[in-house]
This record gives sequence, C-alpha cells and structure tokens, in this order.
Amino acid sequence: MSGKLYLIPTPISSEIISWALPAAVQQCAAEITHFIVEHPKTTRHFLKQLNSKHSLQEITLLTLNEHTSKKDLALLLEPILAGHNVGLMSEAGCPGIADPGAELVRLAHQNGIKIIPLVGPSSIVLALMASGLNGQCFAFHGYLPIDSTARIGKIQELEKISISLRQTQIFIEAPYRNQKLLEQIVQVCRETTDLCVASQLTDPNESIMTKSIKAWRQALPDINKIPTIFLIQG
Amino acid sequence: MSGKLYLIPTPISSEIISWALPAAVQQCAAEITHFIVEHPKTTRHFLKQLNSKHSLQEITLLTLNEHTSKKDLALLLEPILAGHNVGLMSEAGCPGIADPGAELVRLAHQNGIKIIPLVGPSSIVLALMASGLNGQCFAFHGYLPIDSTARIGKIQELEKISISLRQTQIFIEAPYRNQKLLEQIVQVCRETTDLCVASQLTDPNESIMTKSIKAWRQALPDINKIPTIFLIQG
Repeated sequence: MSGKLYLIPTPISSEIISWALPAAVQQCAAEITHFIVEHPKTTRHFLKQLNSKHSLQEITLLTLNEHTSKKDLALLLEPILAGHNVGLMSEAGCPGIADPGAELVRLAHQNGIKIIPLVGPSSIVLALMASGLNGQCFAFHGYLPIDSTARIGKIQELEKISISLRQTQIFIEAPYRNQKLLEQIVQVCRETTDLCVASQLTDPNESIMTKSIKAWRQALPDINKIPTIFLIQG
Repeated sequence: MSGKLYLIPTPISSEIISWALPAAVQQCAAEITHFIVEHPKTTRHFLKQLNSKHSLQEITLLTLNEHTSKKDLALLLEPILAGHNVGLMSEAGCPGIADPGAELVRLAHQNGIKIIPLVGPSSIVLALMASGLNGQCFAFHGYLPIDSTARIGKIQELEKISISLRQTQIFIEAPYRNQKLLEQIVQVCRETTDLCVASQLTDPNESIMTKSIKAWRQALPDINKIPTIFLIQG
C-alpha cells in the first residue's frame, strides 16, 4: 500500500518553533523517516528542533531543487509507492509555494498518492494579512525581472493591473537587490498607490509598514539584504 | 501608550486546535482581553478551546463585518489607542484575507499602531500547496459572479489569464453553489487545463484532487454544500 505525502512547512526566520508550527504538526513530522528537501543541512537542523523520534542515521533525506530533472522527480516518489510516509519540506515556509516542490506534488496526484498539507508559516500570507491591503483579491508574482528597464516596466504593469482589478500585487526580490527595488517602486508608482514593505516576518525585528507612495517618498527604510515582501495596491 | 493589533487565525474546520495553531500563538491569544470579531458566538467557542486566561465576563468582543461603516471602524481602534492589546479574528482562517478585516488593519497603519500577524491555517495556502499547480505565480479572486452568464465569462477569462501568465487561478463559491460551479468549470474549460478541487481542508474528510478537465469529465464528486476551494491552471 502506498504511503502519504505530507507537506510540512518550516520556520521562515529564526523564530522559535512553538511560534511557527502547531504541536500536532510537529508530532506528525517527528514520526516521519523519509523527507524530500531542498538542502539536507537545513533539514537536519530543523529535525533536531522537532525532537524527531528517529536518529539522523535512520532518516533518509532526498534532494529536490531547481536542478532536479523530470526523471529524478519520479524517483523521489519511490519511497511513497513502497509504503513510506514522506515529508516534503521547503527551505523556509510552505512547500510548493515559491519553491520547486509543486511539480512533485502534481506528479504525486498523477500517481494517486494521498497528499496532506499541514499548517505553518507562509510569509506571503503573513505579509498580506498585516498589510491592510485588499485580501479578497490578490496575486503573487514571485521575483520581478532582474534587468532594470524590464523591472520598471513590470512594476508599472502591476500597478496598472492593481488599479483595474482592485487586486493587491505581491512580489519578492533577492535580498541584496531589495533596496534598489524599493527605490524603483517609490520612483515609478503613483503618489496615491499604497505600498506595504514587510521585512523579517516572524523575527523579533519584524517590520511591517503600509503607506502611500507619497508618504514613502519622505524617507525610506534600509532593507539592504533584509528578507522582505513587497505589496502594492493602486 | 498604544497597544498592539494581533492578527489571530482560527481553525477553518472542525480540526482540533493543536493541528491549527502553534502553542505560542494560542498562549498569546489566551492573554488578550479585547477582540474584534465577525460573530461573537464563534469567538466564545474558540476562546473556550484556547483556555483563555480570562473569563468570558472579562472579555470585550467588538463586531466587525461587511456592514461596519467607516466611522465605526475608527471606534474599533479605540481600545488599542487606550493601551489594550487587541486581537482581530476572522470567522475561519486568517483575518484580513477573504474577510472584512483588511480595512481595519489599513486604518491601524494610518494610526501608527504596531500590527503583529500570527501563524495559522489559510485554506487558500493549504489548497495551493496541495494542488501541485504553479505556486510561484498565483492569484486569488474570492467569489465569482453569481449570474450564470457572467460567471461562465469569468471562468473563461481566468483560464485565459492562467495560460498567458502561467498563473494559478484560485476562487471560491458559496457552498450551496459549489456543485453548479464545478459543472460549469468542467463544461467550459479546455481539456488540457488542470483543475484542483480542494474540499473540507484540515477536516478528517479532507479531499484534494488535481486532474485535467478531460479526466474530470469522466466523473464529478458530490461537493454540494461542502466547503471547497477551486484552482485552475491552463
């Protein structure tokens, strides 16, 4: 009989695990012996925090990242088809969202495997809740283009969509490009557009601020290399 | 000194609270004496589960729903400005997402109030994780139009957007209209479009299935009156 695929969220910052995962989710993860992960090192650290019922020697960690081929994806499902319950984990936050896990989940559906998503932190949801921007209609776009001209075009396009659909637009950037992105948003968006800058979510230094572009132009925070989610609503 | 506004998620189904909320989030909520909620009755039930440190007589419940006027929104912030920590809760899931809480949060930002989002269940995120559809780019649209012709137009529009942006489209419906909506999606979408039907998330009867429209046309589940999230990717 086939095992199940558990989708296990992980802490997104340095927060204590009791703020990040429900107790029953921790217990469920602590019983699993097979995991599919992005970086085994992060997982070993997490399993220690979890008080896994198994020693690291008893645990099998298989790697899934952006280099995993379609053929290797199928191999990752073999432990489940052999009857083991398997946990899919992301580096941080929810597996399958803004990470390479979704393709594996799709393949699991095609193989008739039961998939069980568990509750935990999603930086996108935390940022959206706390932004005060429209949570009835929103879109997440992942990373914006790297090229400066293309990126400015994308920011303007998102602002336009946001106005026409009343849809909050959410996006991220590699932390070392955050400051530049913030400057560009404030430069190209309309005065009346609202921008939320949500940094270091769940961390003791968490900072979440929503202001109009006009207000942001008075002073910008330093978010260089600081994990941040950006949300705009025109 | 002003209090803080805590955004407290609540269980989305009949799940035991230890599956839904991290222990530290429960403790945090158990200390709060002032809440802003949609329906006081649901909240009283939730506070009992939480083992609140305060008796129901010591707790102030203020109501925020779709009938709350702008003027009354400002009144809801008074306990915070008077120094109390206040918890904002939705009927189910995350406050501010697909519920009337966002406007209060926006007003709290304008009043310089510190906003702290806490971790808990979001049916949108659970469904997206478990769908296997694109989690790097997705949009949530809330409810589709009630009028049948407008609704069919909207489904076709969302499928088109999904194809052009490679963006997963997520939407919901009043449970008693779910069966009709499912039939319409299967009728009007392309054979190759993927549809995920995620029902009763976190419940023992949870069911999450992703198939192509072609495969769904073979047989449809009965989701009449069953809380469900729909996701499509063309």
